[in-house]
Amino acid sequence: MWNENALRVCLCTDQAVAGGRSLTEAVEQAVSGGVTMVQLREKTACGRDFYNLAIEMRKLTKRLRVPLIINDRTDIALAAGADGVHLGQSDLPVEAARRIMEHGIIGVSAGNAEQAVLAWRGGADYIGAGAVFPTPSKDDAGEAIGLDTLRDICASVKVPVIAIGGVHAGNAADVMRCGASGIAVISAILANADPREAARKIAAAQKTATDIRIPCP
Amino acid sequence: MWNENALRVCLCTDQAVAGGRSLTEAVEQAVSGGVTMVQLREKTACGRDFYNLAIEMRKLTKRLRVPLIINDRTDIALAAGADGVHLGQSDLPVEAARRIMEHGIIGVSAGNAEQAVLAWRGGADYIGAGAVFPTPSKDDAGEAIGLDTLRDICASVKVPVIAIGGVHAGNAADVMRCGASGIAVISAILANADPREAARKIAAAQKTATDIRIPCP
Repeated sequence: MWNENALRVCLCTDQAVAGGRSLTEAVEQAVSGGVTMVQLREKTACGRDFYNLAIEMRKLTKRLRVPLIINDRTDIALAAGADGVHLGQSDLPVEAARRIMEHGIIGVSAGNAEQAVLAWRGGADYIGAGAVFPTPSKDDAGEAIGLDTLRDICASVKVPVIAIGGVHAGNAADVMRCGASGIAVISAILANADPREAARKIAAAQKTATDIRIPCP
Repeated sequence: MWNENALRVCLCTDQAVAGGRSLTEAVEQAVSGGVTMVQLREKTACGRDFYNLAIEMRKLTKRLRVPLIINDRTDIALAAGADGVHLGQSDLPVEAARRIMEHGIIGVSAGNAEQAVLAWRGGADYIGAGAVFPTPSKDDAGEAIGLDTLRDICASVKVPVIAIGGVHAGNAADVMRCGASGIAVISAILANADPREAARKIAAAQKTATDIRIPCP
């Protein structure tokens, strides 16, 4: 299920952003609209609840044929049979996670080229670069890094980069032009009343930046 | 390093309880006084800090030849090469942890016989029963279960039980007489100005309950 194309539109979950709606329903709609990967992100749930949700999402994402990545907790990723784990700068070092997850996908958040290079050299399969723009969804995201730093990160590593933080249909093409392989979104899809349509618009906007047009002779 | 004797005096760490003192120094002193196992318990540290501390404790406990158990995080236990993990009722289910940690020691907290039996049948190597007495060290410990419930737990499972929560030199013999294989302490050792002497007193008090005296003919 995993190749670079899976990184095109990553949906990071957040039950708070989803409001009272069912997360599984929102995810299913978002995937039907164009989401290519799901990252389960639960910063406040206890381990047991996070694990139970991961098991539920594993069933759903298998049916929908998209990879499932677990935020932060490599043990929950392994126990739930997820495709991989996404690590922040204050989570397990990528080398440590790789020791216990030999074959899974490991993504690492980076806020600058130095962090990105360390993660890539440490064995990361992809880099989550951000927050590119200011965002209300990730309290721990820090200052927005902007498009210049995103471009810098993309040029510094030999693994795919996905841009996260304040990305929506209106700026998705801009981040792709910086060299990103994909984008990750929370609010732009989950806070929308119609996750399918929100995902479709983002995927379409992103595509405009990467369509190769053969010039007329 | 692991056998039932290792469970006799388990020190659960808590940097807050240790005050400004070095945790490694306190642990080294406590082991020289009679502590037989160390459980690293860091409820507020981020994953990275918890992992780095686990690596440091792994070196120390190897040198001191006592098992090291990591609280809650099976991934950190695996990555740091600890001897096992201790799971609360809101952590990963024991069956899930066993799937990813085939050979390690898995302990599970239980507050009653039903939880203890589920944990034992699920594959736990030992049960942490408590809180036996009211305790200030574990905010999440719930109501004290008392000696009757401890006795009930010890009689219900075929794996060793360690008593935790408000255990000190003055009541260590009482909990051992309930059928416990050991005790776990935080404050009684870490909050003491002399961890070595505190551990020695607890180990001595505990021993009075388990010494077998051959009656004169």
